[in-house]
Amino acid sequence: MLVLLKKGAGETVASDVAGRLRMAGFSVHRTDHDGQVRIGAVGDGAGVEWDEVRRWPGVESVARIPVPFKLASRAFHPHDTVITVGRCAIGSDQLALMAGPCSVEGEEQVFRIAAAVAEAGATVMRGGAYKPRTSPYSFQGLGEEGLRLLRRAADAHDLAVVSEVMDTQQVELVARYADVLQVGARNMQNYSLLREVGHSTKPVLLKRGLAATIEEWLMSAEHVISHGNAQVILCERGIRTFETYTRNTLDLNAIPVVKELSHLPVIVDPSHGTGLRDKVAPMARAAIAAGADGLIIEVHHDPDHALSDGVQSLWPEQYAGLVQQIATIAAVLGRRL
Amino acid sequence: MLVLLKKGAGETVASDVAGRLRMAGFSVHRTDHDGQVRIGAVGDGAGVEWDEVRRWPGVESVARIPVPFKLASRAFHPHDTVITVGRCAIGSDQLALMAGPCSVEGEEQVFRIAAAVAEAGATVMRGGAYKPRTSPYSFQGLGEEGLRLLRRAADAHDLAVVSEVMDTQQVELVARYADVLQVGARNMQNYSLLREVGHSTKPVLLKRGLAATIEEWLMSAEHVISHGNAQVILCERGIRTFETYTRNTLDLNAIPVVKELSHLPVIVDPSHGTGLRDKVAPMARAAIAAGADGLIIEVHHDPDHALSDGVQSLWPEQYAGLVQQIATIAAVLGRRL
Amino acid sequence: MLVLLKKGAGETVASDVAGRLRMAGFSVHRTDHDGQVRIGAVGDGAGVEWDEVRRWPGVESVARIPVPFKLASRAFHPHDTVITVGRCAIGSDQLALMAGPCSVEGEEQVFRIAAAVAEAGATVMRGGAYKPRTSPYSFQGLGEEGLRLLRRAADAHDLAVVSEVMDTQQVELVARYADVLQVGARNMQNYSLLREVGHSTKPVLLKRGLAATIEEWLMSAEHVISHGNAQVILCERGIRTFETYTRNTLDLNAIPVVKELSHLPVIVDPSHGTGLRDKVAPMARAAIAAGADGLIIEVHHDPDHALSDGVQSLWPEQYAGLVQQIATIAAVLGRRL
Amino acid sequence: MLVLLKKGAGETVASDVAGRLRMAGFSVHRTDHDGQVRIGAVGDGAGVEWDEVRRWPGVESVARIPVPFKLASRAFHPHDTVITVGRCAIGSDQLALMAGPCSVEGEEQVFRIAAAVAEAGATVMRGGAYKPRTSPYSFQGLGEEGLRLLRRAADAHDLAVVSEVMDTQQVELVARYADVLQVGARNMQNYSLLREVGHSTKPVLLKRGLAATIEEWLMSAEHVISHGNAQVILCERGIRTFETYTRNTLDLNAIPVVKELSHLPVIVDPSHGTGLRDKVAPMARAAIAAGADGLIIEVHHDPDHALSDGVQSLWPEQYAGLVQQIATIAAVLGRRL
Repeated sequence: MLVLLKKGAGETVASDVAGRLRMAGFSVHRTDHDGQVRIGAVGDGAGVEWDEVRRWPGVESVARIPVPFKLASRAFHPHDTVITVGRCAIGSDQLALMAGPCSVEGEEQVFRIAAAVAEAGATVMRGGAYKPRTSPYSFQGLGEEGLRLLRRAADAHDLAVVSEVMDTQQVELVARYADVLQVGARNMQNYSLLREVGHSTKPVLLKRGLAATIEEWLMSAEHVISHGNAQVILCERGIRTFETYTRNTLDLNAIPVVKELSHLPVIVDPSHGTGLRDKVAPMARAAIAAGADGLIIEVHHDPDHALSDGVQSLWPEQYAGLVQQIATIAAVLGRRL
Repeated sequence: MLVLLKKGAGETVASDVAGRLRMAGFSVHRTDHDGQVRIGAVGDGAGVEWDEVRRWPGVESVARIPVPFKLASRAFHPHDTVITVGRCAIGSDQLALMAGPCSVEGEEQVFRIAAAVAEAGATVMRGGAYKPRTSPYSFQGLGEEGLRLLRRAADAHDLAVVSEVMDTQQVELVARYADVLQVGARNMQNYSLLREVGHSTKPVLLKRGLAATIEEWLMSAEHVISHGNAQVILCERGIRTFETYTRNTLDLNAIPVVKELSHLPVIVDPSHGTGLRDKVAPMARAAIAAGADGLIIEVHHDPDHALSDGVQSLWPEQYAGLVQQIATIAAVLGRRL
Repeated sequence: MLVLLKKGAGETVASDVAGRLRMAGFSVHRTDHDGQVRIGAVGDGAGVEWDEVRRWPGVESVARIPVPFKLASRAFHPHDTVITVGRCAIGSDQLALMAGPCSVEGEEQVFRIAAAVAEAGATVMRGGAYKPRTSPYSFQGLGEEGLRLLRRAADAHDLAVVSEVMDTQQVELVARYADVLQVGARNMQNYSLLREVGHSTKPVLLKRGLAATIEEWLMSAEHVISHGNAQVILCERGIRTFETYTRNTLDLNAIPVVKELSHLPVIVDPSHGTGLRDKVAPMARAAIAAGADGLIIEVHHDPDHALSDGVQSLWPEQYAGLVQQIATIAAVLGRRL
Repeated sequence: MLVLLKKGAGETVASDVAGRLRMAGFSVHRTDHDGQVRIGAVGDGAGVEWDEVRRWPGVESVARIPVPFKLASRAFHPHDTVITVGRCAIGSDQLALMAGPCSVEGEEQVFRIAAAVAEAGATVMRGGAYKPRTSPYSFQGLGEEGLRLLRRAADAHDLAVVSEVMDTQQVELVARYADVLQVGARNMQNYSLLREVGHSTKPVLLKRGLAATIEEWLMSAEHVISHGNAQVILCERGIRTFETYTRNTLDLNAIPVVKELSHLPVIVDPSHGTGLRDKVAPMARAAIAAGADGLIIEVHHDPDHALSDGVQSLWPEQYAGLVQQIATIAAVLGRRL
């Protein structure tokens, strides 16, 4: 339920209402909008008569949130959530530009790419140290050593770091090195992992599952938020369809839909969304034109020898050219790099 | 097979080579590129030794076209096909802006909308007179009377006309009124209809089927071209996936893919591709940013009372605003309205 | 609307009620069930007060049919429709066994296969004379000559004939030779063709489209029935999914679903549904176990040299073995060959 | 690589070959077939000249396994894997009948259902103690208390137990109570979890992901086997398509396909595969007719009050009736309960 307090209701009233709902067994979440305190009471409360709550001092109205993703909804939280990561305010008029290699492969590689993407205008560096691989016989990532290299390379160029966490037992370790914890598409409904990153203080980049509906994706965000971490960045990365020419079908329809349903920022991954290098730039431009809050793109200085996903990685100079085009398109929507 | 003549090989040589291949049973198609004549020999020819053809006078090389859509491929026809429809050169640097109501409903409606879309910058008017409807009990269109109204309204505003043809027996009639014959998504593999429009002199707008792969779509174009009509405009209008929030999933990946595989122009229909009015503009912008050659958009002056598809039709003023945004994005790609 | 007459209401009452509804502009369809006349009034009627109709003499009740496929629904027609084709009562406890080559290729071929499938227990022979082919350069069928051969071969072995019709202009011709008119998957929403076969006196085999929902499939059946031809046999032949190992994904869930929603018989095509010879028998058995009313299976005496679909055609002896297994499974459901 | 030893090559030879490959860095797996030792060498070995291995004493041949799922393939392991769980030999001619409630809800419930399914003929009891739920606000399962109840109820009726494990940190706990560890559809590509159950001594029931290709499913099995646990039972439970009438589309094509590609047993879950109670029995029959090695079915004595999935749970008497039908169909394929 959404309990809206009257304008001017002070902190005492707010904490009193929150406390009573908490005592009734609800999980209580608060947001402020337009001078009003909004209290979301979710979960299994009992013994509360909502008609009575309407008459509690300071309460203006009580309403059911009409979607299953309560805390992720615009009904609960009408204004855009902005998540600050390093130099970037994700969800604001500033676009989030994340870039880097698929996997961290070694010191030279990661430092070279960090320099290139920072120079091109990126503010966040991506790079996998723990890699979910279809085959148990493929390169599985450098683990902690990879995280350490990634952090050093990013720091050298004033970049923030996003890296994937695959298991509940890795959350603490990855959070030690990364600024943003990525939950991969294959783990979008790994509810144990969602709970664990929900307890972290680091923002979470939540990729859409290969066959996840938009509602399920927002429900997975709700898992994270309901455990206490409201800093969720959604990431569209392509869904699975019958079309086989591209690796996935990038669903850009999802961008305006998510923007309507939710207050969370949503970025796009055209690298996985197409799987083909020369399709990345057109779809990156399209994502921004559709209203995405940013892009996460695979860049590699030597993609032909990359240990993973080389075929969809941009050359650094391609990435730099793309960023210039993005800047002009962003301006059409009142946004900037 | 693709038979490439030597630069400077005259018309006599060209028609001699073509004639010999035709006598061998092939269907012969010609295109010129970069000062060279290219002859595509398709279908069931027999008794030709290709090694011998290589030695025919004036022949530079003979090569297999490595895709099943021979005449629709860039291998046969390297440069972009440009199709002139009224004031618009579709496939050139000028974007094709097609707009109008889902169905022609009556004189006042069609004249009002024609005025509005022409004013906003459209050059082609869309409108259905024969409507493919899921239910036999829904409005099936005004038939020839609708075509007549559409033609008059378009003429009054110097617009060209595109309208759907559903059956082989309608082709001649629709071609009498329309400048472009639309083959709908549900008929993309109606091969009898493709053959019939392949015999027409009017350009064909070929919508992608709901579950058609890009290859199958190009194969359907090949059906049309192989019967003699090379003026095919492809139209992406959304594919069917598990996502139910939007009517269809607009597959913008298809734009750069088609542009690589084929020389045919490709436009986008964000109205059917989303099915939701306020998602049309973002996806229209995205389509142009992805490299589409134009847009076909449903516009209605009174969408709440439209006899079909009102919920996805733009108000005229929304359309006008969108066209302005499109102009700026187009410039990023070196294009114009 | 469904107008249910009182038990014992005579023919005069029935034709009076039907006449009055027809005069009000409705299309009127009648079925009898359990000693009661049921009248379905569909389409655009006007000026009828349903509350008043309830008080017409002989009328027991008036109810809305709560699904969009009115005449195809069990609400209108509660008992199973049985369609007699040659020696087979399709939709009864007798299973419909249809078999034969993908395409009619010549006299020897079609006579040999007819003998084999008749011997194995089939009662209907399939064979394509007009072939919808993805490529304009593939074998397109023998046309009328193929129909003539098919008819003669079938007659020689007391088999009925089912063959595909691709275009409104072919309906009359195909109906001259075939007992059942097949509408292919790619034409499931070719509404002009549905209308035309709706005017035929021959039963229609309506294949499910590659991406058609069950509701859309029944709506296409409704098109046929609403034009006067109630003899529609549905055919599940696989839908398109992301899985690429099999040609299509045979959706056997559809069998019990259709049986609940509709009174029409539904058969299964495991040849197209799998696209792989050694998967045909398992899925044919599964179809019968799921409650299908019959099977349509591609059989060829020399599949390696078939002009189409050889890779999914059974050898005659495989087909004969399968029919034996089917008989035992059918008995579990109280059915027989 | 697959190293095939000569017939009669003794244990010394076998362990010598295995040891040399292990020293070269390979992970080495052995299976015996038809009196011959077969050694699979997978992973990153180096410095081995396969032409030389061919000449090692006792080696008959060396061949590449031509599919990415090496140890899960029939090429490596030609005969059917049989996994013994309680009284059931899964993968033999005996069908595996697993049944029970979606979630363990309490003592009375689980004992009542255990009695009913045992009486009907089931040999393995299913029941969830840790539940993956789309909503964080839904019932999440009783946890260890649920496992304890499930174990006691199963023991009282001589049933084995299968229960889901959602996280690497739960594996040891669940393995203490259950005979089979279930990995759910949403975790099919949770590679950390696959590795962990790969280290367990308990068999693993691996559900197919909602959008997983058959190859990806077998690759996930490969993850488990490559970590040492060869007892993997595959479970088809429906994939996600555009069809919305049923919860999922049960892909029975997958049964004969898996049987050809792999030696692992494969069972079917028609409860999740349809999501509709009255569609469960037809699809259960179909699964067995298609060649499945067993069924896992949700049964509840009071489905209207079940805490999860009541709408797809069978009544105990429905389940008992179904088992009788299954027995007859199984006999057609030379199998038994």
